[in-house]
Amino acid sequence: MARPIAERFAAAGVHLGDTVRLVHGDRVDEGVLMPRHAFSTADVAILKLKSGYNVGVRVDEETAIELVRRAEQRPRPSRPIQAQSSKPTVAILGTGGTIASYVDYRTGAVHPAASAEELAYATPEIFEIANVRAEVVYQVFSEDLTPKNWLELARRTKTAFDQGARGVVIPHGTDTLGFTAAALSFLLKDLPGPVVVVGAQRSSDRPSSDAATNLVAACRIAAEAPLAEVVVAMHAGPDDTRIAIHRGVRARKNHSSRRDAFESVNARPLGHVEGDRVVLTEPHRAPKPGSCRVANNVAHDVVLLHSYPGLDGATLERAANGRGLVVAGTGLGHLPHAALDALEALRKRGVVVVMTTQCLWGRTDLNVYSTGRDLLRAGVVPADDMLPETAFAKLCWALGNATDRDQAIEWFTKDQAGELSQRTLLLEAPPLE
Amino acid sequence: MARPIAERFAAAGVHLGDTVRLVHGDRVDEGVLMPRHAFSTADVAILKLKSGYNVGVRVDEETAIELVRRAEQRPRPSRPIQAQSSKPTVAILGTGGTIASYVDYRTGAVHPAASAEELAYATPEIFEIANVRAEVVYQVFSEDLTPKNWLELARRTKTAFDQGARGVVIPHGTDTLGFTAAALSFLLKDLPGPVVVVGAQRSSDRPSSDAATNLVAACRIAAEAPLAEVVVAMHAGPDDTRIAIHRGVRARKNHSSRRDAFESVNARPLGHVEGDRVVLTEPHRAPKPGSCRVANNVAHDVVLLHSYPGLDGATLERAANGRGLVVAGTGLGHLPHAALDALEALRKRGVVVVMTTQCLWGRTDLNVYSTGRDLLRAGVVPADDMLPETAFAKLCWALGNATDRDQAIEWFTKDQAGELSQRTLLLEAPPLE
Repeated sequence: MARPIAERFAAAGVHLGDTVRLVHGDRVDEGVLMPRHAFSTADVAILKLKSGYNVGVRVDEETAIELVRRAEQRPRPSRPIQAQSSKPTVAILGTGGTIASYVDYRTGAVHPAASAEELAYATPEIFEIANVRAEVVYQVFSEDLTPKNWLELARRTKTAFDQGARGVVIPHGTDTLGFTAAALSFLLKDLPGPVVVVGAQRSSDRPSSDAATNLVAACRIAAEAPLAEVVVAMHAGPDDTRIAIHRGVRARKNHSSRRDAFESVNARPLGHVEGDRVVLTEPHRAPKPGSCRVANNVAHDVVLLHSYPGLDGATLERAANGRGLVVAGTGLGHLPHAALDALEALRKRGVVVVMTTQCLWGRTDLNVYSTGRDLLRAGVVPADDMLPETAFAKLCWALGNATDRDQAIEWFTKDQAGELSQRTLLLEAPPLE
Repeated sequence: MARPIAERFAAAGVHLGDTVRLVHGDRVDEGVLMPRHAFSTADVAILKLKSGYNVGVRVDEETAIELVRRAEQRPRPSRPIQAQSSKPTVAILGTGGTIASYVDYRTGAVHPAASAEELAYATPEIFEIANVRAEVVYQVFSEDLTPKNWLELARRTKTAFDQGARGVVIPHGTDTLGFTAAALSFLLKDLPGPVVVVGAQRSSDRPSSDAATNLVAACRIAAEAPLAEVVVAMHAGPDDTRIAIHRGVRARKNHSSRRDAFESVNARPLGHVEGDRVVLTEPHRAPKPGSCRVANNVAHDVVLLHSYPGLDGATLERAANGRGLVVAGTGLGHLPHAALDALEALRKRGVVVVMTTQCLWGRTDLNVYSTGRDLLRAGVVPADDMLPETAFAKLCWALGNATDRDQAIEWFTKDQAGELSQRTLLLEAPPLE
């Protein structure tokens, strides 16, 4: 907390987690004093209201600060729980997000876990499942994670496996969780066990929180599932009884707030966690012994652009200033003809342009309409039934590691991690479930 | 068809719609000769294969052309069907797309309707429902329609109502159908009857075509529904029994090929057409007599941009070169902090920046996390539960007609056509159906 506010609260005997009343003229705000985020401005205090919402309240010299109720202090386990050789080891690599923000839920103050111990001990149930090694790799909102962070996470994952983990759990903000899960699917090869990216839609201070159920399920998958893929563990439905196991390259956040926001798109979930059972119902890669491989690099100049009416070549060309462009086209994968000349210019600059569909469900097909054939002639690479987000992560991986443009395209068009399903006849395909 | 190919086919006695065999060395292609699209190259013939796919086949001097089977000629009604005063009048304003490409389905040759008569007579059932006045306004793939075309369509719609139509049907390519339906919802006010935007996912030469069922249902809605809104009529499920009536501002194409690709997002459909019955189950605007109003203008410099990991300020600023920017942010409506400085620069340039969620379902909430509050401070306007596509159309309307930036924002944040639902508590809201 910046000096002026911090000093004023300290003088009033108020600490983080305490319930406080701020009075400024007619305005009264009461709530739990929250830690300030790095991006907050210096003169604003963050209060968690009774409703569960956080508000920012400007505090100046005329603001009266009243302590309403001191935060209840609960004892925490003071020593690491003893490792038991009969249990598998699960490594937890924290990155931030709502799921990592549950440490002080007893006090009502939601803030990021500052240490690995906090992260792990907030959900003690996981120690019944596995020996847990936790570390905080990042402490950021997931919208601030970049492709470079993906690479570091992949490296840490390999290290965790090399140090004896059976599985790796990555708590992650849900905003870009699907992107990261897809990216790790491409950056890691020959996994010896499960990598489970897990989030929470509601923080632990809420009655409806999914943080603990999701984390426990993720640890169970990491400790027990005969699976060697990057998966996403999130609520399968509105209640707490089933956690879905989505393949990382197929998972998408399709609701801004529901606990079952994540869905497998163009695929079924690989399985579910129901109570203490992990049930896998779709074909999946089995673990194999040995060390996994990590990609050397990742491109961080790929651009994602959704088509819209009136998109013209100049706008497209201006936006696509890196080595790669992922277009989320309309329908089967189309762009306005007004944008086609730009594609020619991009090709001359060596930009790899791939085409996905903004419909999300279904697949691109550039052979049905002449627009699609024009795109193929302009060198556009169809992404079939890959999600735009997955195509983005895949192109970052391919361009970061291939020796040239042609090899990147070759890698991109080949199934790497279950992101491309066998091609079926487009128009007469049976309805997806 | 460009000269050289056209002459060669003519010399071989082959006409459009005939089944033809093209032999070039070892390669043999057989199919129905299709009309060439304006964007095809001059030396390519388009064949519709037995599989239903179209292919482009290069034809040069060494290509042998063999007539396999002449297209069957069927008589068409030669005189307009007499108007009956007992029936309401429905105006059909054709724009192109798969639904308008069914005229020659008896011959197997799918091509755009060249005249209003072709358009209407291809589905004679509609004359039992209404007196039909048809005209072809555009004949383009829907990805090539621009905001200017929306305005012209709105004007034609008003004219049709003024000339006595009870309802207006707009056959449209499905790629950008949702955008157009949303745009018309804002460009037209005080409608006296239904405006039904209708498409087809499969052309009439396919056994699974939805062209006729959708058009008949659309005409029924236009002729009979006690409804004065812009709606979308498309298959409600995989079979032909129910056609959904989506509110135009809520309809989105969520599958690239399924017949029931369109869904109402964050709302229920207004109703359905089942057989010859129109059933409205949700609150809707009733027709009122009088002439409707049409907006004077539409902005065509609004940009739509979906956020992704690594998006930085420079890319954002480069992309947003018009008066408006619609961001489809992650989660509750977030952008990377690395992009925030650009927002400040955009605000100084007078650009209106609105925030939607790329989750599509759910709503933005910029008050939950500090990222959101930073966006609010940067002047970003939250779009609540509007689809990104709807927000795009709405901003084109608002910026095109408001006297200044502030008025545009005021119009944008107010519900105009059912695109904003009553605000419910975000995190504890009951699950949507």
